[in-house]
Amino acid sequence: MISRESVIKDLHAIQSQSPLVHNITNYVVMNTTANALLAVGASPVMAHAVNEVEDMVKIASSLVINTGTLSKSWIDAMIKAGKTARERDIPMVFDPVGAGATSYRTKTALQIIKECRPRVIRGNASEIMALVNEKGNTKGVDSIATSESALHAARLLTKDTGAVIVISGPVDYIIDNQSAIEVRNGSPMMGKVTGMGCSATALVGAFIAVNRNFLLASAHAMTVMGIAGELAAKKSDGPGTMQMHFLDELYTLSDKEIADLFDVK
Amino acid sequence: MISRESVIKDLHAIQSQSPLVHNITNYVVMNTTANALLAVGASPVMAHAVNEVEDMVKIASSLVINTGTLSKSWIDAMIKAGKTARERDIPMVFDPVGAGATSYRTKTALQIIKECRPRVIRGNASEIMALVNEKGNTKGVDSIATSESALHAARLLTKDTGAVIVISGPVDYIIDNQSAIEVRNGSPMMGKVTGMGCSATALVGAFIAVNRNFLLASAHAMTVMGIAGELAAKKSDGPGTMQMHFLDELYTLSDKEIADLFDVK
Amino acid sequence: MISRESVIKDLHAIQSQSPLVHNITNYVVMNTTANALLAVGASPVMAHAVNEVEDMVKIASSLVINTGTLSKSWIDAMIKAGKTARERDIPMVFDPVGAGATSYRTKTALQIIKECRPRVIRGNASEIMALVNEKGNTKGVDSIATSESALHAARLLTKDTGAVIVISGPVDYIIDNQSAIEVRNGSPMMGKVTGMGCSATALVGAFIAVNRNFLLASAHAMTVMGIAGELAAKKSDGPGTMQMHFLDELYTLSDKEIADLFDVK
Repeated sequence: MISRESVIKDLHAIQSQSPLVHNITNYVVMNTTANALLAVGASPVMAHAVNEVEDMVKIASSLVINTGTLSKSWIDAMIKAGKTARERDIPMVFDPVGAGATSYRTKTALQIIKECRPRVIRGNASEIMALVNEKGNTKGVDSIATSESALHAARLLTKDTGAVIVISGPVDYIIDNQSAIEVRNGSPMMGKVTGMGCSATALVGAFIAVNRNFLLASAHAMTVMGIAGELAAKKSDGPGTMQMHFLDELYTLSDKEIADLFDVK
Repeated sequence: MISRESVIKDLHAIQSQSPLVHNITNYVVMNTTANALLAVGASPVMAHAVNEVEDMVKIASSLVINTGTLSKSWIDAMIKAGKTARERDIPMVFDPVGAGATSYRTKTALQIIKECRPRVIRGNASEIMALVNEKGNTKGVDSIATSESALHAARLLTKDTGAVIVISGPVDYIIDNQSAIEVRNGSPMMGKVTGMGCSATALVGAFIAVNRNFLLASAHAMTVMGIAGELAAKKSDGPGTMQMHFLDELYTLSDKEIADLFDVK
Repeated sequence: MISRESVIKDLHAIQSQSPLVHNITNYVVMNTTANALLAVGASPVMAHAVNEVEDMVKIASSLVINTGTLSKSWIDAMIKAGKTARERDIPMVFDPVGAGATSYRTKTALQIIKECRPRVIRGNASEIMALVNEKGNTKGVDSIATSESALHAARLLTKDTGAVIVISGPVDYIIDNQSAIEVRNGSPMMGKVTGMGCSATALVGAFIAVNRNFLLASAHAMTVMGIAGELAAKKSDGPGTMQMHFLDELYTLSDKEIADLFDVK
């Protein structure tokens, strides 16, 4: 069961273990997600060369794959890293950025899921719907659909893949075959900063590195993300200050803040 | 005719329509320009794979091509996207970053202009001069020449290509075969933050997505850029705070601020 | 001899000459290091295409090579640029990010050192140790070893390569065959922001562009880095504000601040 205490426990575990999180992600957010991982206490590394991803993932505690900016050689590296991670039982989270926007993205996402079998898939409503061939009305990389509308798709997807599915939006849904958790933390300002979804995925990477209950770990990550976002939004005048305060809040997040703001069922 | 009202009208149009702006840009500024587009109300997407640029540009309202960091496969994708955009009459703005610094950049820029026929070309004085084989004294990606010195080159370039030419600098000149607009808004602090020129180009992308008068749309973009820059500079102690406040100001820019600060002829 | 005055003199030289610094660096930090170079008064350019790196480096005052995110075509460009720089006697600084983490990174770093003969090599303790085949306990791109533990490795490396070696950490060591300088400036908060090590390397690039005494120039860069970091940390609540204030402090750094905080022997 998720609780204030379970969130706090995992966050402390990340801070004390500083797990190495291997990221193969997109150009737009590399700096942002590396900083988010550092702020939460993890140790990020980015490596995408086909020649080194196997070696890198073998020393990592988790793997984050994100298809925000794709090309052939990157896809090859993602699949090689993802397969190695699965063989070695190193947990992987997958972010199918822009699935549904082009058939190339949708196909690539499905191929990665099939070949790498990620433990967690996190996307917005449109992306999750695109993965099960439902119309999600993607607008580039942004979703027009609501999280609620993607719940059916998520249930199909978790059944088909065995992965925990995270749909992020005003309410985040984290589901597997048995359970569903709703994280109500967060702020609309988070949607005004590029890469917030990608940062959420990276944080899931940090939490699954320290907790093998992937449903709970994912929900913990989304809770921490949402609470830091709420706290940052209160201090922010726009997306510039939001981006900055978000990192500060992630870094200084206290047990009391988590306990006070926890809004999950 | 450009006026306070015409600037405000276009900005509102971006905020209400949230046009999808497809960017193929450089690694240095991807995050910066995505955030600037989000802040102004547009919906940015980055995609550079030859396999998907056609599909992506077809669903976009405008295309932004920027040659800040080049390589073979990226150039192929830029040209494919640009040609598709032209065929479909999706407006494209082109930023020839560093033209004049190396012959590779100059040649690539000329090739893109020839094959894709952009609606708008935005550069600093040196870059615009390099495109018509005038010596612009480029220093890497920065210009030593003044905007005024590039006016002759810009007139040749607009005549030759039919594109609106934007020369940015302390005064921005926006010209086509008939007209010239001077935007005097802006702040010297903008030159201390990397990617401000690229953000200007991205904003032009947002404005040409909602206004087919490309001369006016470009001037509107440069005005909004300059006013947000002025407002941000007043609050800033250096380039770090400048970068942050600039996004906030873009996001919160009011009709009154535009009306009060508008300095265009 | 390093002194308050020698640091200030070089910083003024950068601000007045605005040297063009050519960077072939990693995706994560490109924006960060470009902004750091601009803030200190240099003129950064990023270019990585095999077709243009020779032309670009020929007009540059120094070259920065950083292996944070590698792939085949980038390595080819790095070596081509580095060889050209050496032939033309344009000083190069090399940052072997993640050496020791994978054999691909270690081998690539050694190849670059052998073929390009950089004037300065800057890394954390683990990276420097990996280059001479000592176990440095690298964790991805972060070091677990202390700077002191890498001194022996650095002495071997400077003897073998003729390069000045910079080991950064709580105390930075800058050594060549004759001398060793210890820079005690800095703040633990610098380790909480991604790309601070890469920014240090970029600043070394700016200083070796104006001072051919590479030992002193490197120590000056690390002193300016450390003092700006200290000043920024005092104003910061976490890594978000730290990143922002660091750029402001670099930009506004006064002779008096350098003189007051200088902590070097």
